[in-house]
Amino acid sequence: MPSFETITLVVDDGIATITLNRPDRMNAFTVTMMEELIAAFDQTDADDAVRAVIVTGAGLAFCAGADLSAGADSFDYEKQKGNAPDPLASGINRDGGGMVALRLFRSLKPVIGAINGAAVGVGATLSLAMDIRLASETARYGFVFARRGIVPEAASSWFISRAVGLSTALEWCMSGRLVNADELEKRGLVRSVHAPEELYPAALALAREIADNTAPVSVAMTRQMLWRMAGAAHPMEAHQLDSRAVQARGASADAKEGVASFLEKRPAAYSNRVSVDMPDFFDWQGEPDFR
Amino acid sequence: MPSFETITLVVDDGIATITLNRPDRMNAFTVTMMEELIAAFDQTDADDAVRAVIVTGAGLAFCAGADLSAGADSFDYEKQKGNAPDPLASGINRDGGGMVALRLFRSLKPVIGAINGAAVGVGATLSLAMDIRLASETARYGFVFARRGIVPEAASSWFISRAVGLSTALEWCMSGRLVNADELEKRGLVRSVHAPEELYPAALALAREIADNTAPVSVAMTRQMLWRMAGAAHPMEAHQLDSRAVQARGASADAKEGVASFLEKRPAAYSNRVSVDMPDFFDWQGEPDFR
Amino acid sequence: MPSFETITLVVDDGIATITLNRPDRMNAFTVTMMEELIAAFDQTDADDAVRAVIVTGAGLAFCAGADLSAGADSFDYEKQKGNAPDPLASGINRDGGGMVALRLFRSLKPVIGAINGAAVGVGATLSLAMDIRLASETARYGFVFARRGIVPEAASSWFISRAVGLSTALEWCMSGRLVNADELEKRGLVRSVHAPEELYPAALALAREIADNTAPVSVAMTRQMLWRMAGAAHPMEAHQLDSRAVQARGASADAKEGVASFLEKRPAAYSNRVSVDMPDFFDWQGEPDFR
Repeated sequence: MPSFETITLVVDDGIATITLNRPDRMNAFTVTMMEELIAAFDQTDADDAVRAVIVTGAGLAFCAGADLSAGADSFDYEKQKGNAPDPLASGINRDGGGMVALRLFRSLKPVIGAINGAAVGVGATLSLAMDIRLASETARYGFVFARRGIVPEAASSWFISRAVGLSTALEWCMSGRLVNADELEKRGLVRSVHAPEELYPAALALAREIADNTAPVSVAMTRQMLWRMAGAAHPMEAHQLDSRAVQARGASADAKEGVASFLEKRPAAYSNRVSVDMPDFFDWQGEPDFR
Repeated sequence: MPSFETITLVVDDGIATITLNRPDRMNAFTVTMMEELIAAFDQTDADDAVRAVIVTGAGLAFCAGADLSAGADSFDYEKQKGNAPDPLASGINRDGGGMVALRLFRSLKPVIGAINGAAVGVGATLSLAMDIRLASETARYGFVFARRGIVPEAASSWFISRAVGLSTALEWCMSGRLVNADELEKRGLVRSVHAPEELYPAALALAREIADNTAPVSVAMTRQMLWRMAGAAHPMEAHQLDSRAVQARGASADAKEGVASFLEKRPAAYSNRVSVDMPDFFDWQGEPDFR
Repeated sequence: MPSFETITLVVDDGIATITLNRPDRMNAFTVTMMEELIAAFDQTDADDAVRAVIVTGAGLAFCAGADLSAGADSFDYEKQKGNAPDPLASGINRDGGGMVALRLFRSLKPVIGAINGAAVGVGATLSLAMDIRLASETARYGFVFARRGIVPEAASSWFISRAVGLSTALEWCMSGRLVNADELEKRGLVRSVHAPEELYPAALALAREIADNTAPVSVAMTRQMLWRMAGAAHPMEAHQLDSRAVQARGASADAKEGVASFLEKRPAAYSNRVSVDMPDFFDWQGEPDFR
């Protein structure tokens, strides 16, 4: 297991917990954290023992946003050289938050955000690429970009209107104001709000419900199918995709075990593994790439 | 009127009711039911006397999912030959649920789901392609695919995030758990929840409100415009479409009657018919096809 | 400042208020109103003193829909010659409501609808292209097109499912029934409902929160990014866009002032202006055009 500086990754009984771990800096986002988060999700995807991932923050904050220790030049990427270069050498530095968000998008395991406190800037936008968000009563979101002279990043202009209504998204991002837990729940950004000490147990219970009852390859494919078809123009695209998916999985050992265990009223014991049993068409050829 | 084995179709005073009718099998979905549902919607579209369609289930369930009488091989399509072949001979069997969902998508009449009990598997996903869902207090949804080793079908990866938020969709489909009527209403999958004996009357009242007050061609075009533009990338696509639609319908007999009756404060008597008066551009050329 | 016949435009302390001003006709929409609304938004975009735009109606109605003074031929565009010709000479008259909606879509300033009463027909659909809607308790929406023999316009088939769930949109548009303020709020079409005399002050407070706390170029870009990515197929499109946007704005004077003022715990004084400081890539090449 790799050694991380800014996060921790613990796997326990099928559930991985990634903790943003710079509590003295309110878990502020750095280039190192970007690289480590991507590496952590590479690991949770590769490890068949991981059935779900919880992301939370150490201390009182979830993530206070970009580290501003470079002062007024913090977002001047030519000076900071903080982000990865464009592989096509077009002169565009790829946004680091976006690279993490796209890594979350491609995750083969469910990602549950346990938002334990302030989620500001990139702390707010990164969470939009998680599947399900639970919040502490102390959580506060701030899409503060317009209050700092910059713009929303981490591909959040795509993710946010899949997480809340577009009008709510526009209000939050154009005003930059802080949003408390009640409003987060009312507007649907978070699934449920919990007392601080009950947040992680609630996230864990949800992760367990998935881990204890489902076939891993089915969950990985379901996650990808729903995220990718959310932006599709026409249901025929889904029909083309799920006809292949149903045919591939319907003939699998997991499908036979799933039906047999159901008919026999016993727990299923699935043998297919995400690391080796994802179908061939699952490379999403033709998807847009960075350019 | 065709004779059906697994469903019934009754037309009464402008409202068609399609009932899934295998109550001894909880209306489990079969290849025959697939074919009959497609035929039934061909008929409701062709019959100008039909102004709206209600879909419900006989007995206590709406639809318990695919018929599993073939046991562990139930989803092995090579063995079951249960689905239609790919017309392009690519070796992919088209998913039968998806063919019904796409038929619902193309319906020229409003489709109201009266979900009278368990809606599980394909019973759950098929309902996503209906316009409006009302539920009995006894309704339960189960997107159980990941608990059976398979994946969501019936093009539901496209339809579900048009019916509920993507995060809710992911939670329901990745956990596969049953969802009760309260949660269905809270998350917006169903419009309203009713006592069992009040469900069908409520669906009928909604159907009547459409049938008694509107122009049939207007409703057919409106339905298609909203469904198809829900996935469009840019509002210019809608502007290109509705400029043609407004020009075509604005000069119609129905538009003249609609305005005249409004100004004269009398009920309208519309003469245009769906079977003959849909505009020429309404063939949606260039749409994705199965491949 | 241009002189308008059918609307008024007042700019006060950074907030523009556009008032539909035919109160004796319930602010019914005409070709002149279409042209004047487009001109008004050209002006609010060009004027750096304008930080947000409120749209409301004079008198008791917001907008009762198209002016029907031509009687039964009101929607027969060949006879009315009411809309602009197609610039490509394809024989299609462009829908006038759609031209206003697309102008709203391109606005560089936030657009807040203060819906003070009846919003019917084009009065309802135009408001869908506004960012945020607040309603008076007396507000009523009517997507009445199917009750008049015509179809929804103003590109509303795209906008409406970004404003409310698709099922709600279908119910409202296929039935054509009036929807009261409670239902508008419950279904999410309006953000909040107010006593009539408190509506405009509430809209003004929201406009002020944006105007007083944010960088103008950031708000203009944020608005465009969220609207345009709402229809994008894949988050990579947002990553391509915001990588450029973050790089451009991160090196700007506004970003340096934004971070410096935050670290110094003082109000920011932004110097960049929408009229001259929008980045070069902000011409959205390749977008669909009318054809």
